[in-house]
Amino acid sequence: MIVKTIDVEAPVLQTLLNTEQALRDRAAAVLPNGMYGHQSIRLLPEEYPQFFSRAQGTHIWDAQGNRYIDYMCAYGPNLLGYADPEIDAAYIAQLRLGDTMTGPSPLIVDLAEAFVRNIKHAEWAIFCKNGTDATTAAMMAARAATGRNIILRAHGSYHGSAPWCTPLPAGTTVADHANQIFYDYNDLASLHAAIAQAGNDLAAVFATPFRHDAFVPQALPSQEYATGVRAACDAAGALLIVDEVRVGFRLSRDCYWETLGVSPDLSSWGKVIANGHPISVLLGNARARTGAEQIYVTGSFWFSAAAMAAALATLRRIVETDYLEHIERMAASLHDGLSTSANRHGIGFSQTGPAAMPLFLFDEDPDFRRNFFWCTEMLRRGIYVHPWHNMFINAAVTEADVADTVAAADAAFAVLAQVQHNLPANARLAPLFAVHGG
Amino acid sequence: MIVKTIDVEAPVLQTLLNTEQALRDRAAAVLPNGMYGHQSIRLLPEEYPQFFSRAQGTHIWDAQGNRYIDYMCAYGPNLLGYADPEIDAAYIAQLRLGDTMTGPSPLIVDLAEAFVRNIKHAEWAIFCKNGTDATTAAMMAARAATGRNIILRAHGSYHGSAPWCTPLPAGTTVADHANQIFYDYNDLASLHAAIAQAGNDLAAVFATPFRHDAFVPQALPSQEYATGVRAACDAAGALLIVDEVRVGFRLSRDCYWETLGVSPDLSSWGKVIANGHPISVLLGNARARTGAEQIYVTGSFWFSAAAMAAALATLRRIVETDYLEHIERMAASLHDGLSTSANRHGIGFSQTGPAAMPLFLFDEDPDFRRNFFWCTEMLRRGIYVHPWHNMFINAAVTEADVADTVAAADAAFAVLAQVQHNLPANARLAPLFAVHGG
Repeated sequence: MIVKTIDVEAPVLQTLLNTEQALRDRAAAVLPNGMYGHQSIRLLPEEYPQFFSRAQGTHIWDAQGNRYIDYMCAYGPNLLGYADPEIDAAYIAQLRLGDTMTGPSPLIVDLAEAFVRNIKHAEWAIFCKNGTDATTAAMMAARAATGRNIILRAHGSYHGSAPWCTPLPAGTTVADHANQIFYDYNDLASLHAAIAQAGNDLAAVFATPFRHDAFVPQALPSQEYATGVRAACDAAGALLIVDEVRVGFRLSRDCYWETLGVSPDLSSWGKVIANGHPISVLLGNARARTGAEQIYVTGSFWFSAAAMAAALATLRRIVETDYLEHIERMAASLHDGLSTSANRHGIGFSQTGPAAMPLFLFDEDPDFRRNFFWCTEMLRRGIYVHPWHNMFINAAVTEADVADTVAAADAAFAVLAQVQHNLPANARLAPLFAVHGG
Repeated sequence: MIVKTIDVEAPVLQTLLNTEQALRDRAAAVLPNGMYGHQSIRLLPEEYPQFFSRAQGTHIWDAQGNRYIDYMCAYGPNLLGYADPEIDAAYIAQLRLGDTMTGPSPLIVDLAEAFVRNIKHAEWAIFCKNGTDATTAAMMAARAATGRNIILRAHGSYHGSAPWCTPLPAGTTVADHANQIFYDYNDLASLHAAIAQAGNDLAAVFATPFRHDAFVPQALPSQEYATGVRAACDAAGALLIVDEVRVGFRLSRDCYWETLGVSPDLSSWGKVIANGHPISVLLGNARARTGAEQIYVTGSFWFSAAAMAAALATLRRIVETDYLEHIERMAASLHDGLSTSANRHGIGFSQTGPAAMPLFLFDEDPDFRRNFFWCTEMLRRGIYVHPWHNMFINAAVTEADVADTVAAADAAFAVLAQVQHNLPANARLAPLFAVHGG
């Protein structure tokens, strides 16, 4: 059973294209490149819609009203389902009382206490808006706490789009990238070499919970690696920052590295913590607190109460319900269904990373032409999947959604099997790989 | 007529202190310094409440339920009145349809077009969350557009709290402050000297619409200065960035410097543009567009639709109503009433900057002891004013509010006149001025 099939011959498609195209034409005039940032479709298959008019549960509707089962979850923020009635009611109720005021509401204390209660390493919280705010404040707090300058980052890890961390060099200076040394994820030798290079000026090591870089296979951290990063930080007198912005609460109810017995000094969170309402947070332990108390970081909406009310409601759901186990069940079912289907059609198809945050790649597909083709077939069958970015399973996904997705995938694999050796080059991604040498 | 008088002898005060104190005690455990950022009360008079539980129109209520006429407007975001029914209804209606989704809603196009239509220099828009996001993206776009590194900023001007611009050095590196040269606001000679120092590497000059630094008298830009900054940028091949985050739409319906006949290349906006809902924007002209199209800036909630719906509703009010003229009338009435009252009591009291964004200072008050005393008297009479930061008049202020405020001020000036020569030193601000050498 497929949620919605778009018949490419039908008049409705022309209307869709007109509507979508009309929006794109207008956007091209008033938005840089027609769309800036991570939600630009410039590097997605041609038929992907740029605009969405509605979101509910695990579904999104494009500007023409076509519904899709959405595995991007707004690039993360959707944890419990779009427009969750309980979370949104908490937001709206507080909005009516008071949101952005001349001081914080008492909810800021309740929310900080809730994080301190539920996140093992956390003794304090700084609430902000963007994930980048939390990673940047983490860096500043670590530098202030240690009186040192250098931070280590894993090659390819995304920590935001501020000048110090944005993945493209345009608009940044050499100085913006000073005091940073890179190492390879899951490679302690490269970490130790980077620490040696930092000498006695190492403030902190950034680590994502697992390797979730775009375009390449994802990888969970080895136990040896996670333990080794912690030990190396301790030996160097540096702080460990785990950047949970993308992963947080999707794989565990605490920092993901706690499942490996490793506590960070600082952790950055965003996206899901209010199920899509705008709020992020930096958490830290006592050791990092001296740094957090010295730095000056703030924002016009960092004290807004409505998103804090929504975050409190979200944390309650995280603590009190089996949302996580449901995500795990649906994710495992989807993983197995896709794997079985791909095998049946003889398609070389890999799912890397945790099942709840999968990345799909195709064998012998250096320019992603097979991936783009398959994703387009999925989109036409009402399933929104991403060809090179990790996806997200949310707690509103049902067994019927998984069955629909696997059925669509089975049909899409079948079509791909017919043409996979005769696909034209991927014109959209070719320039990117030319630049990156990949 | 005074909105609410707090009798310092009454049992209610003990309850207030208990509630406020209980919150502060809990906050001290889970928030750095008990509160981080610009809404911390550590540098405000002792009786100022840290927490607010409600906001409506021009009023805020502290955690104990005491109501104040609020002249801080959440440090800016309140333009049309807190919890404005029309703006919040627009937000909530869109929230129910779709807010943070896998792509932007068509509203992003409508909103970008609305800014382009109403802001003379704007040809494109990038929406973000914090004011700091917009100023940082402006800097990056200017650097990318010019291929140059150096930016000029006026001494003391606030442009956000990212490492490159946060006013405190803790947690930042020398490299974070590279490629910046400072000049004095309203001083073309110092601007020209800074430009000469930048040589052929000048990317952009930042300017606030007027000088609105904390602790010191505010100053409007001279015509010569504004015209001279534009001419100097043009001569140097650099871009002019006007940072409207704090001022925007409070003094004019376009960039404030348009009233002086000066168009910037880039302008950053935030705070008021959705009347308190979290959204900011970078606007630019064709010259800056090449830069904006090269940089990678984004955020988890930058495409969220509900705040865009609220911004569209706010822009409609800005364009279609006399909100601005009402603010100007109320501001002028308040200015005149306070001035007359201060004179009557023989108090040396100044109001600098535009009447709609006044800063109050007292003569012979280097450590702000008179200011703190007077503000405390105002607070006790139900009026929330700030002793060293500019304030904001919003469009929900009524003639009765102004009359209440002037009556409270008259009583507060009378008390101050009795004691102004015998006040103890200001223990809270003394360390600050020791650090800053002021």
